[in-house]
Amino acid sequence: MDSLYEDWDRLYAEANKLQVPRVEGEVFCFGMGGSGVACEVMSAFYPLLRDMRHADVVIAVSYSGNTRETLEIVRKATSAGKRIVAITSGGALATLPVERILVRGGDQPRYSFPLLFLPLVKMLRPELTEEVIRGVNANEARRVAGDLLSAIRGRIPVFYASIYLGLAKRFKQEINENAKYPAFFGEIPEVNHNEIEGYAHGSGLFPVVFSSGPLDEVTASLVNAKVIRISGIRDVSLLIQSAGFLSVMLARELGEDPEKLTRIPEGRKLVERIGS
Amino acid sequence: MDSLYEDWDRLYAEANKLQVPRVEGEVFCFGMGGSGVACEVMSAFYPLLRDMRHADVVIAVSYSGNTRETLEIVRKATSAGKRIVAITSGGALATLPVERILVRGGDQPRYSFPLLFLPLVKMLRPELTEEVIRGVNANEARRVAGDLLSAIRGRIPVFYASIYLGLAKRFKQEINENAKYPAFFGEIPEVNHNEIEGYAHGSGLFPVVFSSGPLDEVTASLVNAKVIRISGIRDVSLLIQSAGFLSVMLARELGEDPEKLTRIPEGRKLVERIGS
Repeated sequence: MDSLYEDWDRLYAEANKLQVPRVEGEVFCFGMGGSGVACEVMSAFYPLLRDMRHADVVIAVSYSGNTRETLEIVRKATSAGKRIVAITSGGALATLPVERILVRGGDQPRYSFPLLFLPLVKMLRPELTEEVIRGVNANEARRVAGDLLSAIRGRIPVFYASIYLGLAKRFKQEINENAKYPAFFGEIPEVNHNEIEGYAHGSGLFPVVFSSGPLDEVTASLVNAKVIRISGIRDVSLLIQSAGFLSVMLARELGEDPEKLTRIPEGRKLVERIGS
Repeated sequence: MDSLYEDWDRLYAEANKLQVPRVEGEVFCFGMGGSGVACEVMSAFYPLLRDMRHADVVIAVSYSGNTRETLEIVRKATSAGKRIVAITSGGALATLPVERILVRGGDQPRYSFPLLFLPLVKMLRPELTEEVIRGVNANEARRVAGDLLSAIRGRIPVFYASIYLGLAKRFKQEINENAKYPAFFGEIPEVNHNEIEGYAHGSGLFPVVFSSGPLDEVTASLVNAKVIRISGIRDVSLLIQSAGFLSVMLARELGEDPEKLTRIPEGRKLVERIGS
């Protein structure tokens, strides 16, 4: 099962061959779940807008191309006359009047993260592309994952970050989806104003802080968190791969099949029924 | 200790006497913790911006008036030449060149929610003011709180919502701060793409959905959540009061003093030290 994340160097090499359009001005980037998190990770390295309305360029990320929520926002952006760039493997999104970055499909979004993330880097911070690729290192990523795994056993991990909040969210998502196990994430400094107080009765939690500086370290010291210090996109690239290994290792311990989802596809069906 | 939330009808009556300026155009509203959540609750009833840059009016909510993060954003807004309205009891914020709505100080922000929230309603949706006040009902709020309390014992509550996400966050914050107990919140539909899968091993969690329609009910059915249906701002007003009672009841069971915070003030000191 490790092979899902073992060959990410090949996946990044494949992504690096993709042609991407030139993007300028204010950018709004969005998507759901394992697709949208690529935008959130990218936001540490490019000042993405949080509202679509004032965007010069809208980037829609949907691996399947059929995510209902994403298609709805693309339709709104189209009505508003926005320039839209879609990163997708196909689906309904690829049939809409948008610029397309077509990636190879057939897998699950979370296993295809390099195919979704690298095009963003190439569009918004092309000079960082090589660093992302160099960050991938299966042996090192497995070592980091092993360290975390032993601390998570029997507890619920909570991942905290300020500028690297997308990375915190990715760890949470991977654990939810691959291991079918609870995990949460929280934003610094907001959590310093409420969540940290809950740790008086928080022995069932395992807090991890992705630190970019002193504010993050304050949170870490107050909740006695494991601290992972990050100095740039290369570290982020390694840690995204670590999140994969960690969640697959945890899945194995819990007797779960990482690739098999039940509630998410069930939810998708229920949502489609609402729409009809 | 219940008295903290018992007299919210008086607090709302007091808030209703406050003069508020007229506000028009696109509004960005922000603050941290128990102050900022007033904006987030309000966002269910007024389309607030998520970026400051394109705002016509910036509303800063800081009960103490000394919250470092809030003062920083106000300074940025001032440099950008924005019109700024502050809701505060004083502090450094009241000395800056902004329009002020001065509320009575001396309490903790979370116990003063009516004083922070009602001015927002009066500025942005004045026709809803009376409904907010009518929603307050200590007996009914305690009943709702009691229902939730028995289910939370020994589990970690997770509050989910789509448009009422601010309410979900408020429940989480109240439990963290008053009961010193873990609680989380999550946004629908995003959680349908990852978090719901974690409930395969989520017997330690107690999910609650604040439902405004079929999409919220999908999440609820997939994680077997307690559903609280909301039909308008009057329900929200009642539930904000319920969150208070719930967290105080839980504090009592855990032997915690609701009014005494330890980590949050410690964090504030550490953050001040960074600044110097």
